[in-house]
Amino acid sequence: MAPKVLICGTIVWADDDVKQLLGPIAEVVYFDSTDRTDFLKGFQPGEKYEGTVAMFRDNNLTDKIGIFDKELVDAFPASVKWIAHNGAGYDQIDVQACKAKVDDASATTALYLLISTFRNYAISERYLRELKWKPNGLAQRSHDLTGHTLAILGLGGIGMRLADLAHAFPMRIIYHSRNKVADAPEWCEYFENVEEMLGQADVLSVHVPLRPDTVHLVGEKWIRALKKGAIIINTARGKVIDEEAMIRALEDGHLASIGLDVYPNEPEVNPKLLEFPYITLLPHMGTENQDTQRKMEVRALKNVQEYLTIGSGKDIVPEFQKSKY
Amino acid sequence: MAPKVLICGTIVWADDDVKQLLGPIAEVVYFDSTDRTDFLKGFQPGEKYEGTVAMFRDNNLTDKIGIFDKELVDAFPASVKWIAHNGAGYDQIDVQACKAKVDDASATTALYLLISTFRNYAISERYLRELKWKPNGLAQRSHDLTGHTLAILGLGGIGMRLADLAHAFPMRIIYHSRNKVADAPEWCEYFENVEEMLGQADVLSVHVPLRPDTVHLVGEKWIRALKKGAIIINTARGKVIDEEAMIRALEDGHLASIGLDVYPNEPEVNPKLLEFPYITLLPHMGTENQDTQRKMEVRALKNVQEYLTIGSGKDIVPEFQKSKY
Repeated sequence: MAPKVLICGTIVWADDDVKQLLGPIAEVVYFDSTDRTDFLKGFQPGEKYEGTVAMFRDNNLTDKIGIFDKELVDAFPASVKWIAHNGAGYDQIDVQACKAKVDDASATTALYLLISTFRNYAISERYLRELKWKPNGLAQRSHDLTGHTLAILGLGGIGMRLADLAHAFPMRIIYHSRNKVADAPEWCEYFENVEEMLGQADVLSVHVPLRPDTVHLVGEKWIRALKKGAIIINTARGKVIDEEAMIRALEDGHLASIGLDVYPNEPEVNPKLLEFPYITLLPHMGTENQDTQRKMEVRALKNVQEYLTIGSGKDIVPEFQKSKY
Repeated sequence: MAPKVLICGTIVWADDDVKQLLGPIAEVVYFDSTDRTDFLKGFQPGEKYEGTVAMFRDNNLTDKIGIFDKELVDAFPASVKWIAHNGAGYDQIDVQACKAKVDDASATTALYLLISTFRNYAISERYLRELKWKPNGLAQRSHDLTGHTLAILGLGGIGMRLADLAHAFPMRIIYHSRNKVADAPEWCEYFENVEEMLGQADVLSVHVPLRPDTVHLVGEKWIRALKKGAIIINTARGKVIDEEAMIRALEDGHLASIGLDVYPNEPEVNPKLLEFPYITLLPHMGTENQDTQRKMEVRALKNVQEYLTIGSGKDIVPEFQKSKY
């Protein structure tokens, strides 16, 4: 199924370009709504915009549906991964709302991995589907989240959002960033010393960007600094963890489990990971990560094409560029 | 692996009974700790009490570890499903803490099913383990929880706990119980009319006990009262939903997905359910449900034996008896 691209505006200058750039790789759908309510209804199951992955927009339809404000952005389904704006400014799109939405999607993935690894649910689902009902013994290795300690490495937007969700149980939240986060709530305990934090963690969730200096940041030493029986969750980038060291710690029982959404060489998955039936492995469902740090320039349609073919456009508004962990 | 039973007290009168009643069906472990800290450490992975399923306790060790207060109960791992107290009163056990723990475990299961069905994570895990990476198209049917409406049928302890966890996103929380819940927070909107509530729900989570008048409570009419594309979560009891009506609604697309932890004839699972790859099916991982309404009497060891052999003892403190939905 070709990904759906919604042209949400008026293509005056480049109708042929749409066909040429997107035709071979996408199902192109054109805006056809009378107002904002009708527009949003179009994204519902069975409706005309259902499953839209990327959108082109310009200012020509603003009188019909208004700007892409928080209400619109929040209402877009999770399928929408890319909005390309045709125009030099981007005051017509609530970029903060877009960023909050991406943070939310990734943090929800981390929370899912937390629940699944603590409670051994992923393996239980597979057992049931093989009509074997429950896996023996695994339920006895299960724990509630409530009252356990979650260590967050990198308290940026996603880390903070996860902290909020886990605090609802409540879990105790501890974190390390390169600097104490000034506006973090008081129930987020800062540790300047990473290893001291790790020694208190029942689960470590990694939220640092991939940079040359964060490759294998979580290596043998930090993994061994975790309590015996701890869990690691990674929804950031695969290469931030030394995968071999992590697998060794699973093998010798130092780690009780891991929950991964990212891998060093996606979509390849280290077959050794499949030997641990009780860990939870997702195929990068968080959201797309946009890592390019290139300067912004607006190349709307081309940008959509790039997103569909190489996973990321070149034109990213500053709010989406990765914050320092 | 035989379930582990921890004798947390002094068997003066019935040492042979322990062997006779529990020997053939359990691994019996005896209390061997110097104090409360050492006792709790024993439940950690690799330690002597790890995986304990049921406990016998009396008041003889109170001087060493104190009563089973909130701190102890909260710290017990999820493996602990049954505490049998030898004594006529039960002031030595914080029963409210036990109940909160059970509510928490069940509500966490419901939250997991919510995330998994909204985001299509269970099928994604299976795809990855078959080295197929992501399922095509399903990610485009995925939604964030945030901003969607969760309808709770039966706002008792578990329903309220789920409301708390889902409110953290936030989701909009609406509910129906036979009566408005007096101490519910103001962000829980009460609907006297069930069908009116269902018409506004993106997802319905069922939290009513099984009684003669709740069999097939959620039937054809209520299922069709849900919005097209809605999701149903059931962590209560299988028979509360008319399974055939639910499957028909999945088949014709009225329901987008379902997440189940319970089934009408456990451990049997209707094979028709397995034909829907994107739904999430857990083998009753919530916690054990205790439905007996019999009067309390203390028969400690016998009670543990019953729990292990028939899934529930006869002696349940009033706080664990099901509240009216």
